[in-house]
Amino acid sequence: MKNGNVAVIGASGYTGQECIKLIQRHRGVSLRYVVGNQSAGQNLNAIRPAFPSLPILPFPEVPWSQVDLALTCLPHGPAEGESMQTVAALRAQGVKVIDLSGDYRLQTPATYQTWYGHAHQHETLLKQAVYGLAEWNRTQIRQADLVANPGCYPTACLLALLPLVRHGLLAESIIIDAKSGMSGAGRSAKIGNLFSEMADNVRPYGAGRSHRHVGEIDLVLGQYGFSSGITCFTPQVVPLHRGMLCNLYLKTRKDLNAQAWQEVFQETYANEPFVKVLPIGQFAEIKSAVETNLCVLSLHPIPDGVLIMSAIDNLTKGAAGQAIQNMNLMLGFDEQEGLL
Amino acid sequence: MKNGNVAVIGASGYTGQECIKLIQRHRGVSLRYVVGNQSAGQNLNAIRPAFPSLPILPFPEVPWSQVDLALTCLPHGPAEGESMQTVAALRAQGVKVIDLSGDYRLQTPATYQTWYGHAHQHETLLKQAVYGLAEWNRTQIRQADLVANPGCYPTACLLALLPLVRHGLLAESIIIDAKSGMSGAGRSAKIGNLFSEMADNVRPYGAGRSHRHVGEIDLVLGQYGFSSGITCFTPQVVPLHRGMLCNLYLKTRKDLNAQAWQEVFQETYANEPFVKVLPIGQFAEIKSAVETNLCVLSLHPIPDGVLIMSAIDNLTKGAAGQAIQNMNLMLGFDEQEGLL
Amino acid sequence: MKNGNVAVIGASGYTGQECIKLIQRHRGVSLRYVVGNQSAGQNLNAIRPAFPSLPILPFPEVPWSQVDLALTCLPHGPAEGESMQTVAALRAQGVKVIDLSGDYRLQTPATYQTWYGHAHQHETLLKQAVYGLAEWNRTQIRQADLVANPGCYPTACLLALLPLVRHGLLAESIIIDAKSGMSGAGRSAKIGNLFSEMADNVRPYGAGRSHRHVGEIDLVLGQYGFSSGITCFTPQVVPLHRGMLCNLYLKTRKDLNAQAWQEVFQETYANEPFVKVLPIGQFAEIKSAVETNLCVLSLHPIPDGVLIMSAIDNLTKGAAGQAIQNMNLMLGFDEQEGLL
Amino acid sequence: MKNGNVAVIGASGYTGQECIKLIQRHRGVSLRYVVGNQSAGQNLNAIRPAFPSLPILPFPEVPWSQVDLALTCLPHGPAEGESMQTVAALRAQGVKVIDLSGDYRLQTPATYQTWYGHAHQHETLLKQAVYGLAEWNRTQIRQADLVANPGCYPTACLLALLPLVRHGLLAESIIIDAKSGMSGAGRSAKIGNLFSEMADNVRPYGAGRSHRHVGEIDLVLGQYGFSSGITCFTPQVVPLHRGMLCNLYLKTRKDLNAQAWQEVFQETYANEPFVKVLPIGQFAEIKSAVETNLCVLSLHPIPDGVLIMSAIDNLTKGAAGQAIQNMNLMLGFDEQEGLL
Repeated sequence: MKNGNVAVIGASGYTGQECIKLIQRHRGVSLRYVVGNQSAGQNLNAIRPAFPSLPILPFPEVPWSQVDLALTCLPHGPAEGESMQTVAALRAQGVKVIDLSGDYRLQTPATYQTWYGHAHQHETLLKQAVYGLAEWNRTQIRQADLVANPGCYPTACLLALLPLVRHGLLAESIIIDAKSGMSGAGRSAKIGNLFSEMADNVRPYGAGRSHRHVGEIDLVLGQYGFSSGITCFTPQVVPLHRGMLCNLYLKTRKDLNAQAWQEVFQETYANEPFVKVLPIGQFAEIKSAVETNLCVLSLHPIPDGVLIMSAIDNLTKGAAGQAIQNMNLMLGFDEQEGLL
Repeated sequence: MKNGNVAVIGASGYTGQECIKLIQRHRGVSLRYVVGNQSAGQNLNAIRPAFPSLPILPFPEVPWSQVDLALTCLPHGPAEGESMQTVAALRAQGVKVIDLSGDYRLQTPATYQTWYGHAHQHETLLKQAVYGLAEWNRTQIRQADLVANPGCYPTACLLALLPLVRHGLLAESIIIDAKSGMSGAGRSAKIGNLFSEMADNVRPYGAGRSHRHVGEIDLVLGQYGFSSGITCFTPQVVPLHRGMLCNLYLKTRKDLNAQAWQEVFQETYANEPFVKVLPIGQFAEIKSAVETNLCVLSLHPIPDGVLIMSAIDNLTKGAAGQAIQNMNLMLGFDEQEGLL
Repeated sequence: MKNGNVAVIGASGYTGQECIKLIQRHRGVSLRYVVGNQSAGQNLNAIRPAFPSLPILPFPEVPWSQVDLALTCLPHGPAEGESMQTVAALRAQGVKVIDLSGDYRLQTPATYQTWYGHAHQHETLLKQAVYGLAEWNRTQIRQADLVANPGCYPTACLLALLPLVRHGLLAESIIIDAKSGMSGAGRSAKIGNLFSEMADNVRPYGAGRSHRHVGEIDLVLGQYGFSSGITCFTPQVVPLHRGMLCNLYLKTRKDLNAQAWQEVFQETYANEPFVKVLPIGQFAEIKSAVETNLCVLSLHPIPDGVLIMSAIDNLTKGAAGQAIQNMNLMLGFDEQEGLL
Repeated sequence: MKNGNVAVIGASGYTGQECIKLIQRHRGVSLRYVVGNQSAGQNLNAIRPAFPSLPILPFPEVPWSQVDLALTCLPHGPAEGESMQTVAALRAQGVKVIDLSGDYRLQTPATYQTWYGHAHQHETLLKQAVYGLAEWNRTQIRQADLVANPGCYPTACLLALLPLVRHGLLAESIIIDAKSGMSGAGRSAKIGNLFSEMADNVRPYGAGRSHRHVGEIDLVLGQYGFSSGITCFTPQVVPLHRGMLCNLYLKTRKDLNAQAWQEVFQETYANEPFVKVLPIGQFAEIKSAVETNLCVLSLHPIPDGVLIMSAIDNLTKGAAGQAIQNMNLMLGFDEQEGLL
């Protein structure tokens, strides 16, 4: 019997749709309300025939007392229909929240201002938010009322980096060459995201330290004791809908061989259901992670360091799947529930 | 030595870009001016590094007396920046025009009004315009000052249908199942045309007689003596940038065998450089036509009729390539010049 | 608690992998054994990291008494490693079987011989096999020991055709233009199925009545009283991995309007969880069915008939999903279990 | 009038087909003979309808005295139907050769043995072969009888690296993250290259110094005075047919700003028609190079170095286009002839 009631805020975007799909499979929670801005007034099954018949409501018109937890799948920002104020309003109603935007990830107002270019308007809430990287933050997530679900690039990169940081192995040079599926660009009408622009294309859209996710990764690395940050992060879009591959070229403090690198990672993630370290000689590829909540890692020694390949599905482990994983922790379900 | 001067109006859309690419390869004409609305002020090589360095001009600021022929690659319609008035202004300057929009294809104001939903404002010009299907209209095109370049679907369908009409073989049932690459939807920002919406998708967007190209095909069939028109035309987009395949399920007045159908078509197109009739047993596929100016046809007898598969590249034979073919006729070049 | 034990025979092909994925999500059955030919000796999670750790066994080495039901995901044919003999061996052991190949669909040895070109070697079993189109055959499937899971094209086409046949509405002309994702071609190394051959391509590979699935569709239509069969079936591959769209151009005995067609289909499928009839004016598209067990239908009146668009995921409703649906009926689970 | 006679050896592979396409557009040479192994006996236009009608001949049966230059588009290796012996046989007939395989690129038998794992059987010829990177080797190519056409990865990487080497700016750390379209894998039937395996996928297939092209790049860098070689080269395939993007993360001897890096490259390539250095702030992407003979470069300062993005079409500048460029030099045509 399902005894949790969940609302999804932001029904028509790609992460919102993925949350709804995963909640349908969950044995413990029901999709009680669905909220949309542009889609309010429609039925949910008009967005996708496999979705249940439910009215899409405008934001305020929800009896929040009946909701145990809300997943906010909105763009970041302080405006109406964006995440910052919506999350605050939900928390004011006593609803537990998992926010899939970037608004509550950076933990201090100054850091938020630096990377997002405007002030945060809910500083207390920002400080209370727990960073939802379950493999490294499980205890806190279990007790949280507000979880900031990690970004897709940070998820793939931090799961590759933190084992090294914890063992003091990472030296001061992190080069990340990252490829993302197009769903990472969101469901908004821009010429650059048209099929005809991206079919048969690979397009870099940043270099150095320009992408907001650099700030997010640096912050978490700092909390684990690595303070020099990323050297270069190159985000790129590739012609596929969902999936992500990050190649991390790392200088390390020790020059280990393949077997030794394997041991560091296998020991770290031995009991993690959603992190798979591939055998020596295999390569992480996007296909091995798509439509799963896995992070698939492979390790390749290079002179003075190691190359780590990290593959996830940006919509699952990089967004909705990780959110359900966090929900399971917050509501007391088995962590894998609904995620097979 | 190049002795023709050509202008391309509408530089940033897919057909405009394709015209520029083909003119670069042409031995007889130079790309003298490039005109754009949104892109005016930019250099042409900012749109595509392989393009020559040329300023993109706003529409009226061109010394038209130096231009022999203009290719208008604009959306249809009567507004500024659309084709109807632009073509008229160019003709008023004495410039020969090949219009790649639908504005001058339907020949009578009433037919235009029926299919486009608004009145035509240049009726005389509309009546003077010559339909640019070179294989069937070569003599008129050679003498034309204004050519209406056929639509992509009509090109693929008429080259398949007219041999039957000319021989009185076509009976009153024409079902066309048509698949187009996404460039046919143009370079405008719509959610439905996003990579993430169309990757891994096939999407019908019409049925019956709703598409404007039904009017265009019917009109031409009527001129060759077949008056009952299309029964059902199903346009669909498929996940590829360029290319088109139309399957025409036809009832015929005679029940011929495969060899007899071959003879009808091989005889019709024996001397046509841009129409290839495949041997019996082979199937026209999109790949065989892409990046060429070919229409590739295959014939398959069915009970009481024939199935014809017709493949073209919608940007080449269905737009820019056919326009260059028409330009070659209008300016006296070899019909194949620039099209290999 | 899971109380059914299932074996999947043929672990490395696309339908076998899909069966395994769906069984992982099922609350009532466990994946007890996995059998492979080429992959025997490997661990299942080497094929896909998200799969459980299980040894892949060679065919005979399975304690069949511990298995309630086997899903055979093999190529059709009488040779070792193909379906015909494997199914018979499993039945001889008393194991219930759902066969995903074509070997047990055609019900009589003569029909099988006609379409598959060789004799059937297990005629009794062939006659006992129940055709697994659940929406039309549910009672028989519940009591079956051997279910022949329908082909992908027949699933999409029969769900569109049978409501008309049952009401005596179908006249003697059935034209089907069908587009399939590349997984339908199987996981075998052929040049025509290479990425570089099929990216940016649409390729027909049959016309008329040449495809085996014509025999399968005709047979079922005949059982429901329509004996004149398909006029023309055009199978085509499109550049996507999974998904299928069949456009059925049908002559009918009555000329109904859109509302009337809707009523015929809505009434037929009112209580079916896996068939969705879209509202008037919408078009079935592949995206709406992919990664679901749905058949999505849309209806479009044409002169003297109706065009039906039918979209399924060829790997789910067209193969593994329908197999799980049948398994649920055979083992007494809720028909939707594991299929959300 | 065309006065050069060219033969293409290896007609059915992707590079052979591309050579034929480009020769069709060339004003100075004719496609005199086409040679194939598997395709011998077929007509060339059966491979692609746009190709001219020419018989495909088996290898030895060509009157070589009528051929000025042959383009060998074969796999590398010493066996019949591979490049090593074929090139030697052609040179023995006095035919000028451009070899598109790797067999004549590595210049010394020892280096060849190291990277290809078997002995070279034509050492004299190997030493005579001129490396066909026209922008850096034009004078030698003009006088060559045998040109080893560079590999696709080396072309993209060397055009990015050599300006730094020439100015003594490159320090000892070269990390290259490279993405290639699937045509780079050739037209051979392997499961990993199936559409269904690579659609929606990005797949690394090497790390460190394992790829043969590392040897080729190192060799050329050494000839220009940089002897420490590549640190890590990561080849990956992406889901597109043609195109390549290499991101080179480089440590440099000076820490220049963006403007200074621009000047180094703009000065080097100021007069090169086929190398485009993008303005500061733009990113090289695959789309900007596809179906052109361009190498498109963009420069991005990073701490202690520079990131260079280098985009080419692997079939054009990375194979057939560069071969035609070399042919133009060898036969005295304008270097750009046939390449617009």
